[in-house]
Amino acid sequence: MTLGDYLPFWNKLTEKQRERLSSKSNKIRFQKGMLVHGESDECSGFLLVTEGQLRVFTISDEGRELTLYRLFERDICLFSGSCMVKNIQFDVTVEAEQDTAVFQIPADVYRDLMEESAVISNFTNELMASRFSDVMWLMDQVMNKKMDGRLAAFLLEECRLNETKELSITHEQIARHLGTAREVVTRLLRLFQGENLVKITRGTVELLDENGLEVLAAHSLR
Amino acid sequence: MTLGDYLPFWNKLTEKQRERLSSKSNKIRFQKGMLVHGESDECSGFLLVTEGQLRVFTISDEGRELTLYRLFERDICLFSGSCMVKNIQFDVTVEAEQDTAVFQIPADVYRDLMEESAVISNFTNELMASRFSDVMWLMDQVMNKKMDGRLAAFLLEECRLNETKELSITHEQIARHLGTAREVVTRLLRLFQGENLVKITRGTVELLDENGLEVLAAHSLR
Repeated sequence: MTLGDYLPFWNKLTEKQRERLSSKSNKIRFQKGMLVHGESDECSGFLLVTEGQLRVFTISDEGRELTLYRLFERDICLFSGSCMVKNIQFDVTVEAEQDTAVFQIPADVYRDLMEESAVISNFTNELMASRFSDVMWLMDQVMNKKMDGRLAAFLLEECRLNETKELSITHEQIARHLGTAREVVTRLLRLFQGENLVKITRGTVELLDENGLEVLAAHSLR
Repeated sequence: MTLGDYLPFWNKLTEKQRERLSSKSNKIRFQKGMLVHGESDECSGFLLVTEGQLRVFTISDEGRELTLYRLFERDICLFSGSCMVKNIQFDVTVEAEQDTAVFQIPADVYRDLMEESAVISNFTNELMASRFSDVMWLMDQVMNKKMDGRLAAFLLEECRLNETKELSITHEQIARHLGTAREVVTRLLRLFQGENLVKITRGTVELLDENGLEVLAAHSLR
């Protein structure tokens, strides 16, 4: 697969623009767990995921993490190149949750193209609108769902992503996704275990009753 | 003042584009308290505030409100025209907090211009990035600040906006801004009163100690 196979606007570019994109972009691999883009990093550019899985999250001043969204094959990480769009006044951190490969387009290359091409600029608009929608969904969750429902939804999503019913994940890691304290996760998981929804062992959470968790996720209004 | 005085990209448009914008846009007035754009409304288009103040907020399935940001003179309301950008999958409600005047550019007119002009499309990008940054700031507040600090910050901002130390506002209204319950606001305001930070009477909150409230707003980590 080449860069052109992943960019929906490829056919609308001029020959010169395509050449510039192809010659300037790099293929980069990240091992599972590696930092892809740090908060204080220089602008890492536009990242197009060709395989694997990225987690995009914020870190508060107090070190508390909150997962904003995940990126999968064919998704694009825009905010690793926040310098490409004026007025982005927040930082995100990106890490590889699986072994991941990306095409990286340097920020200045993409920005120049955006400035000369309405097609690319409008594509960027749609991309930002998708991420904005993700964050607005999360805001609704955070404001209006109780933590038990958010935890249930998180466990179900993790199992779906990893195609397993037994997650290798610590309470600390779950807390980082949900932006809460480890103690809260531990307390809720014990509650879930008491209700035969999950079985906890050291470092794993096994889902026993997916339907029960679905119900909890759907009916957890705050 | 004409439309051109408010749009930073005006000078970069062709004569034809300017004519189209001028002839198709409308000046609309909203009285304080009026609904400008409802959740389920058709796409109301691009609104450019020429005077007054708009509040942009979400309403959860349960009817709980959360103020996302305010728009003032020269600000632009993009999400009242969410049909203009693909992939916007959330709804906002907009109401006039003061008597307000706007230039309204119909969604189809703006969308057509965005499609043909990289300048307008990039301007839209920057606009969306600003609002995204506002929402990310709010997310940080919601996740990491205690409600007492958020309430203190809200009271200070309201006084600044209204150039007064005595706010005419109900506990219910404050709760709607902060996305919490009225009881929570009442409890906190009583606490603040006990600490001589504010004085509460029916329908008003008077700020007695702005410095104390500033300190509270700054040191209210969750």
